[in-house]
Amino acid sequence: MSNSLLNTINDPSDLRSLPPDQLEDLAAELRRFIIDIVATKEGHLGASLGVVELTIALHYIFNTPDDKLVWDVGHQAYGHKILTGRRDIFDTNRQLDGISGFPKRSESIYDTFGTGHSSTSISAALGMAMASKMQGISDRRHIAVIGDASIAAGMAFEALNHTGVSDANLLIILNDNAIGIDPSVGALKNYLTRIKEYPNHRAPNIIKALNIDYTGPIDGHDLPLLLKELERIKKLEGPHFLHLITTKGKGLKKAEEDQVRYHAPGRFDARTGKLIPENTEGLPPRFQDVFGKTVTELAGYNDKITAITPAMPTGSSLNIMMKTYPDRAFDVGIAEQHAVTLAAGMAESGMIPFCNIYSTFLQRAYDQVIHDVALQDLPVIFCLDRAGLVGHDGATHHGIFDLAFLRCIPNLIIFAPRNVVELRNILYTASKGLAHPIAIRYPRGRGRITEWEKPFNTIAIGKGDILRKGNKIALVTIGNMAYNVQDALSQLTKEELQAVSHYDLRFLKPLDTKMLHEVFLEHRAVITVEDGVVHGGMGSALLEFAAEHGYKTPVFLKGIPDTFIEHGNVKELFRIAEIDEMSLAQELKQLLAKM
Amino acid sequence: MSNSLLNTINDPSDLRSLPPDQLEDLAAELRRFIIDIVATKEGHLGASLGVVELTIALHYIFNTPDDKLVWDVGHQAYGHKILTGRRDIFDTNRQLDGISGFPKRSESIYDTFGTGHSSTSISAALGMAMASKMQGISDRRHIAVIGDASIAAGMAFEALNHTGVSDANLLIILNDNAIGIDPSVGALKNYLTRIKEYPNHRAPNIIKALNIDYTGPIDGHDLPLLLKELERIKKLEGPHFLHLITTKGKGLKKAEEDQVRYHAPGRFDARTGKLIPENTEGLPPRFQDVFGKTVTELAGYNDKITAITPAMPTGSSLNIMMKTYPDRAFDVGIAEQHAVTLAAGMAESGMIPFCNIYSTFLQRAYDQVIHDVALQDLPVIFCLDRAGLVGHDGATHHGIFDLAFLRCIPNLIIFAPRNVVELRNILYTASKGLAHPIAIRYPRGRGRITEWEKPFNTIAIGKGDILRKGNKIALVTIGNMAYNVQDALSQLTKEELQAVSHYDLRFLKPLDTKMLHEVFLEHRAVITVEDGVVHGGMGSALLEFAAEHGYKTPVFLKGIPDTFIEHGNVKELFRIAEIDEMSLAQELKQLLAKM
Repeated sequence: MSNSLLNTINDPSDLRSLPPDQLEDLAAELRRFIIDIVATKEGHLGASLGVVELTIALHYIFNTPDDKLVWDVGHQAYGHKILTGRRDIFDTNRQLDGISGFPKRSESIYDTFGTGHSSTSISAALGMAMASKMQGISDRRHIAVIGDASIAAGMAFEALNHTGVSDANLLIILNDNAIGIDPSVGALKNYLTRIKEYPNHRAPNIIKALNIDYTGPIDGHDLPLLLKELERIKKLEGPHFLHLITTKGKGLKKAEEDQVRYHAPGRFDARTGKLIPENTEGLPPRFQDVFGKTVTELAGYNDKITAITPAMPTGSSLNIMMKTYPDRAFDVGIAEQHAVTLAAGMAESGMIPFCNIYSTFLQRAYDQVIHDVALQDLPVIFCLDRAGLVGHDGATHHGIFDLAFLRCIPNLIIFAPRNVVELRNILYTASKGLAHPIAIRYPRGRGRITEWEKPFNTIAIGKGDILRKGNKIALVTIGNMAYNVQDALSQLTKEELQAVSHYDLRFLKPLDTKMLHEVFLEHRAVITVEDGVVHGGMGSALLEFAAEHGYKTPVFLKGIPDTFIEHGNVKELFRIAEIDEMSLAQELKQLLAKM
Repeated sequence: MSNSLLNTINDPSDLRSLPPDQLEDLAAELRRFIIDIVATKEGHLGASLGVVELTIALHYIFNTPDDKLVWDVGHQAYGHKILTGRRDIFDTNRQLDGISGFPKRSESIYDTFGTGHSSTSISAALGMAMASKMQGISDRRHIAVIGDASIAAGMAFEALNHTGVSDANLLIILNDNAIGIDPSVGALKNYLTRIKEYPNHRAPNIIKALNIDYTGPIDGHDLPLLLKELERIKKLEGPHFLHLITTKGKGLKKAEEDQVRYHAPGRFDARTGKLIPENTEGLPPRFQDVFGKTVTELAGYNDKITAITPAMPTGSSLNIMMKTYPDRAFDVGIAEQHAVTLAAGMAESGMIPFCNIYSTFLQRAYDQVIHDVALQDLPVIFCLDRAGLVGHDGATHHGIFDLAFLRCIPNLIIFAPRNVVELRNILYTASKGLAHPIAIRYPRGRGRITEWEKPFNTIAIGKGDILRKGNKIALVTIGNMAYNVQDALSQLTKEELQAVSHYDLRFLKPLDTKMLHEVFLEHRAVITVEDGVVHGGMGSALLEFAAEHGYKTPVFLKGIPDTFIEHGNVKELFRIAEIDEMSLAQELKQLLAKM
């Protein structure tokens, strides 16, 4: 198939000059273009395939970028990017210095609002619509496209509750495909399913009850119907809600059949859709799988153990426990706030809840961690996956603030395992019941240890590890930064090496004060290395310790600088943050040379 | 009126031994008891008066504390406290070492879950109910009592969405009085009003659509009816939703008539309800009023200025602007997440949004501040009222984490005015348009400056103030801690005073590095004073600066220690945190004596 139509579309005005009867052909070309590139370059597939018709229809009917379009989460915005001037650089998607995998304001005037975390689109678009109203611009339209998983999050409800009393020109399009990354859950999902199954028996309608004009459900792949309906709605004043039914992965059979796997499938055969399996033979396990398997194992020993994920059963590998102990492992949907307080309620009643949330998404439940867990000192076990730099998902997904924003919370224990054995042992330790809540943060991807299913060991709370002893410089790491440092050390001469100690702090709270006294008493300089923000992070904790005890040893803080780090592979990003092995080795050598 | 019945109730088992026909008399006694004590001791009034019958009915019908009762927010829990063993200490409510104004787990076995922030009750009670189910306890009931303002918050929706697919024994009681602290807003509120006005025409029912068994609305002050209905519901399995209509302030005429004022009325005549006016003649203005008046004034100069409050028009004094410019000032209800992203949307479209949120409630929108504002570098102006120690509301309401959790966010400017003139000028400065978002945090209550309506001055971003110069010790403060230090300095001898410099940092970000070099170069010791947590706070920022530049000057960090500070008056709490004038003076004198 040629891209004879697609190649003529350099921005939506080109699209709008096409006759309507060419749009279906364009849809086919766009779909094929997405498949061909994602097949080799990787990325999110299913969501964008599901909105090919919608994307074309929106840019065709509405006057973008003057009319404002917000894509919720943004997994589905590939077609939008391709039609808005980024076709020829689409193959740089998610790569270092390439375009972002999500809408991004600095990238294009058509990306009115950056997304990445879910459920923000209605609020943002309503803000834009109210702004237009205040500015006396009556003909501008504002459109939020949101999925059925995202609209179930509390934030979206807050926005709907406001929309229902607003007269701003807001069009909310529900892209209802019954799946987020994993299948949608919850009462709202069931309600939407009933609407779809019995379209003529659709009272009670929640959207109408909130005083928002509702139409649908209609087939989101029927392009002529979409065009007609959008053209009609465009002329209406005030808020409107359009309910579309779409199929995630539409147009690639395998992606339609296994929507979870094809959300972000990795490399695949562009023609058949067949996955090109990564060769994982002999590779060490992923941190997430060690979590999923270990928590399942522990749940087998202790029936008080329960686990919660807000919409990430596959991503967290909690699906292992959900399969084995369906009565004790719960996917609550995109509902981080609820997940945390639900866990607190369970802890109050004597259960041992493991609450697994990606580090970046815990930002959504910060108040609940403070107010519902730590203040009440309820022993919830937070398992924060995807901590640190996550790679290609970029700035919206890095889990780099957690150490800083958790460190100031009283009662909370904070632990970062340097490898999967440590992860396994801290899960075991926590499962035996702690006196306080604990946050365990671990990175995306694989560790380095293959033999991980060893007998459990209890980890002493607040106890660090001395990994090597030298006599001049103390390196203090947390989490998997131990390995960045280990790699850096391998580049030192034998003599240099003798001057270097390496401590794994393990616990950001409580601090291992005995070890830290040794760090400051026995060395002439301290270097801290963390894959979190420097401001307020682990290095900062050591500075506070040193200040409190009057140590004047110079401390050098290595970590994420005070800027947002974009996308790229993790090693590239380590390099940018200067916490890669080369930068650390160089830093060490220079410092040693001065001593 | 005697308390002949109330005095016999030492715990709910005493209550349950009364015949039902005595309960109305008990309700009258309980209501009178609350009024009498709150009239002189102050506290929250209206909410507890509105649930007197419900409180009695719940403890009468359910087997508390084995059955679990969670009061959302907890403003309404005074009757509960009095009936559960705290009658004789109820006059210590909200005082230092007295009982808390909110439910508190460490205070009573009947307080199953600590509250203070809204909309947590359904999640917590559902967690408890699911725990009971997992533990095979089938006869335990779990009850969440939530108001109509609180149930509109996103978190509550997340919990309802989960409840609708759960089979746990959860009873949700909607205490619908159409008001939170200010009148409720939003489409859900209007929907509830329609249900109440047309009880027989109540489809579409949102709760039923979420698959939750619904009854109501019924009169929440009709005690026999309540008893009957709760007795009936008690026998049902699975989730149930009971919709009650109540009147906030019920039983005290003036409180019913002016529900906003009587939410927490201060002292009043217990018999007539007439307020005993505080003598505010000649007192300096409250920070909140300077905010409210200034933002209104600025909005008069610039029609791009808009303002948002999540349910705190009175508490933030944004009601001033809402009255003057109703088309540009918005109460979005208890919806901090939405408020922040709505503001981001407005900023995207060229408006200048002031988003006023209590410091403690900004914790609810942390992700939105990072992801929707700072990452996109949208110049939203956050006005964080009630920063620092707030006094009698206690641990749930202190705004002590903000400096630490905001400091790690790139792009964000952070400013704390030491007085209302500085507040006024930073609001002016921000209104002229900044290149980045800014967070302005200021305390509860009054400042010390009476003459505040002076011509506007622009504040240079990132510029601190030198308040006095000495030669040995540099005191660095932020915000109104300048006055604690000023008071401490007044206790020094003239000679001691000559040794002391005092710097007001003003901007936590960006740091005034020129000033800080002076601080470290020209002094032998530095003391930082902040009314926020020490871990990761302002002092920590100075340590990072010193480490970066190799300064070895000792730094002493004064601020909130790593523990939750309870309730009391602000001066008492300053003392506990050792940031009061006496503690600071003592610290200074001791340090000077060693020099």
